[in-house]
Amino acid sequence: MLDEGERMHRVLVIGGSDAGIGAALRARELAPDSAVTVVVADAYPNYSVCGIPFYVSGEVPDWHSLAHRSVAEIEREGIQLSLDHVAEEIDPAAHSVNVRDAAGSQRELAYDRLIIATGAVPVEPPIGGLDLPGVYKIHTMDDSLRVERAVTAERPSSAAIIGAGYIGLEMADALTRRGVKVTLLVRGGGVFRKAVDASLGQAIEAELLRHGVEVIKDVQVDAIRRDGSALVVSGTPDKKWRAEMVLCVAGVRPNAALAERAGVEIGIQGAIRVNLRMETNLPHVYAAGDCVETWQRVTQDYGYIPLGTTAHKQGRIAGENAVGGRREFAGVVGTQVVKVFDLAVARTGLREAEAVAAGFDPFSVELPAWDHKAYYPDAHELLMRITGDRRSGRLLGAQIVGHWQGQVAKRIDIFACALFHGMSVEALNDLDLSYTPPLGSPWDAVQLGAQAWARAHRSMGL
Amino acid sequence: MLDEGERMHRVLVIGGSDAGIGAALRARELAPDSAVTVVVADAYPNYSVCGIPFYVSGEVPDWHSLAHRSVAEIEREGIQLSLDHVAEEIDPAAHSVNVRDAAGSQRELAYDRLIIATGAVPVEPPIGGLDLPGVYKIHTMDDSLRVERAVTAERPSSAAIIGAGYIGLEMADALTRRGVKVTLLVRGGGVFRKAVDASLGQAIEAELLRHGVEVIKDVQVDAIRRDGSALVVSGTPDKKWRAEMVLCVAGVRPNAALAERAGVEIGIQGAIRVNLRMETNLPHVYAAGDCVETWQRVTQDYGYIPLGTTAHKQGRIAGENAVGGRREFAGVVGTQVVKVFDLAVARTGLREAEAVAAGFDPFSVELPAWDHKAYYPDAHELLMRITGDRRSGRLLGAQIVGHWQGQVAKRIDIFACALFHGMSVEALNDLDLSYTPPLGSPWDAVQLGAQAWARAHRSMGL
Repeated sequence: MLDEGERMHRVLVIGGSDAGIGAALRARELAPDSAVTVVVADAYPNYSVCGIPFYVSGEVPDWHSLAHRSVAEIEREGIQLSLDHVAEEIDPAAHSVNVRDAAGSQRELAYDRLIIATGAVPVEPPIGGLDLPGVYKIHTMDDSLRVERAVTAERPSSAAIIGAGYIGLEMADALTRRGVKVTLLVRGGGVFRKAVDASLGQAIEAELLRHGVEVIKDVQVDAIRRDGSALVVSGTPDKKWRAEMVLCVAGVRPNAALAERAGVEIGIQGAIRVNLRMETNLPHVYAAGDCVETWQRVTQDYGYIPLGTTAHKQGRIAGENAVGGRREFAGVVGTQVVKVFDLAVARTGLREAEAVAAGFDPFSVELPAWDHKAYYPDAHELLMRITGDRRSGRLLGAQIVGHWQGQVAKRIDIFACALFHGMSVEALNDLDLSYTPPLGSPWDAVQLGAQAWARAHRSMGL
Repeated sequence: MLDEGERMHRVLVIGGSDAGIGAALRARELAPDSAVTVVVADAYPNYSVCGIPFYVSGEVPDWHSLAHRSVAEIEREGIQLSLDHVAEEIDPAAHSVNVRDAAGSQRELAYDRLIIATGAVPVEPPIGGLDLPGVYKIHTMDDSLRVERAVTAERPSSAAIIGAGYIGLEMADALTRRGVKVTLLVRGGGVFRKAVDASLGQAIEAELLRHGVEVIKDVQVDAIRRDGSALVVSGTPDKKWRAEMVLCVAGVRPNAALAERAGVEIGIQGAIRVNLRMETNLPHVYAAGDCVETWQRVTQDYGYIPLGTTAHKQGRIAGENAVGGRREFAGVVGTQVVKVFDLAVARTGLREAEAVAAGFDPFSVELPAWDHKAYYPDAHELLMRITGDRRSGRLLGAQIVGHWQGQVAKRIDIFACALFHGMSVEALNDLDLSYTPPLGSPWDAVQLGAQAWARAHRSMGL
């Protein structure tokens, strides 16, 4: 698996989140004699930042439990952690990285192989007042602790959330659970629009409404200002919303400035350009995670698609290759899931617009399907949307929304596995999926979706 | 999809359960001008016999709801049902079937294409007293109604169940829910032995015990006799168990006598021999479901593997081909799931012994894995067992036992999809599976299993 001559490297990793720790663990696993150091900008290596909303909601009482692994556990794997160390400069010619600790003192760390896993930073939209007290972003553990403390100490009765991507939705859920009245300010015509189509978005909006969240659509927030004890968010069209707390969660962008200064080639949306081995243009320099371009297997093209699952995979591959491996990243297929109150919302592959952009000729069907036989108690109806290629019959994507205990997430994974292998929609019916009445149907919902699509396809006379 | 000259057939189906109705629906769907008749031996076409235990348990209050479709719904699809009609003889030369109705009158039904979907019948082990009052089998809707009536009317305080396959397990659960003290008599050294390995069987036994079910292993039942108000089950080694009700659920065998008399070739364990198009050796005669041999995709061999999911698939293919299609059955990979109290137990692919028999060089790893991030409430630990081929690294099978709300069933389906495509264990890590902390992990349990297997594989120096 590894070239013998490639062993015994000094591997330096910049970044202590999913990709960085994943890379370090893999390097040590495959090359136990390698010296692996991870430079971590804060004191929270290997934290599950995806878990932040559930800490704010109170569902996770102790934030320490958000760590995938403790510092001791990471060190037990033979990884050296440099916490509260910021990487200042990479010198690719000298094979070294200049780092500065919290006290301000600097030193050089030498490497044989470097893995850049600097992640992403929150997008700051052009909104006045984002730095006012009471206005928060949600990205790091420090952000998380700050918001939680504010909710606990100040007991805000209301919050405005700018942004309706998955973090916006999760925070709407979280703050509602804490007794805060939430207004969700959405730039476009519906929530979660970058992930799912309108009909699924509507199902999410209904769930938000059912739990008291107000959803304001088609609004462009311009400014936030303080008015006594409240904040006033104003936007276009000319409207104002008062809230005691404001969260701005408008997505992320690659944190690639350090790499760029060192001569690393930058690509889509400012992300680091890598090949499938997670190699940058610089010799012996790898990159992985939210700071890099990601290969999309269905579109057969690169994109900027930051996600924790992908960061883990890319980190693992970078770590393997840094100690002499030859592994290639197989690419994502576009899988995502979010829980919003009692709903799980999941997608994989391409939606129609994405499929058209990628050169396919897609059409979609939508259908309700039970998560298990309706006669067995607590059956939940799922809304499914299946997209396939009109010409080839190939599966292009699927979206499911339904009760979070309806195995929505792992059903989308069946589609994800099918997409990975380029299956046709019809071929889904060939899969030998499990069935017992409390947990499925003889034709699983996945296959009922495939059959509905095939019927529609046939009715077009194709 | 269909040859034009093949349309407008008279399609006759013998058998009104999963395979038969599936075939009829598919024929009508693809060839709306075909005349499709289904001969049904009882009055319950298209019933979910897999649902019987949940009716007996009381979880499904009305047995009518066990119908996948009502008679009216089936007829609305243009299918003619001949209920309470028994097929007596097939005359392949004359292309006709002799049927007899409940009143005893007989007639001939002509066909252009015949689909035999006569299902299975319960195995009757060599046990004296199986015909005593109070001794039941569970196979048809009539059996189901009889057992439910007995539980309701006679309120037995105890029951002995002979057989610990999935119906035995489900009935142990069902009768316990009805307040009946259950003793499960197991022939071998553990429950569900044909489906899962010993460690998973032990988890099931612990769950049974926790709910008050007594499990007696390594017993060969010889006879049942009546002793006053009780039945006495006696077996080897020399022991006796008293119970007010006895269920014998010792598996099924193909119901293929009608076909055999007509000259249809019979194969493994008395099942009808079919090719991948579900054609028998007789021209224009197809067969599907629990009465046929089934292609196993992983072993690349036929076996007798009766299951509802498979019957649906094979029926659909037989129906398609009977009206001129050319579809081939892709084969099963060995997927099964059962719910026992709060546990779901699932498997797919081959266990080690099965893999050895099929010429592989397997080894397995076992590991616990959380169904979702442990920090989020109600995380359940799953026990996973992964089997792969030592030489090729290919995935051969997986088994999971864990809380029934831990997405066990659809996780096994991810493995099933991977097996369908002949993936290596290591390649499971390439799958873009969904993640949010309440519903999974950045590396899903499926992938943590793959990583544990790969580590063990590597440690062998292979």
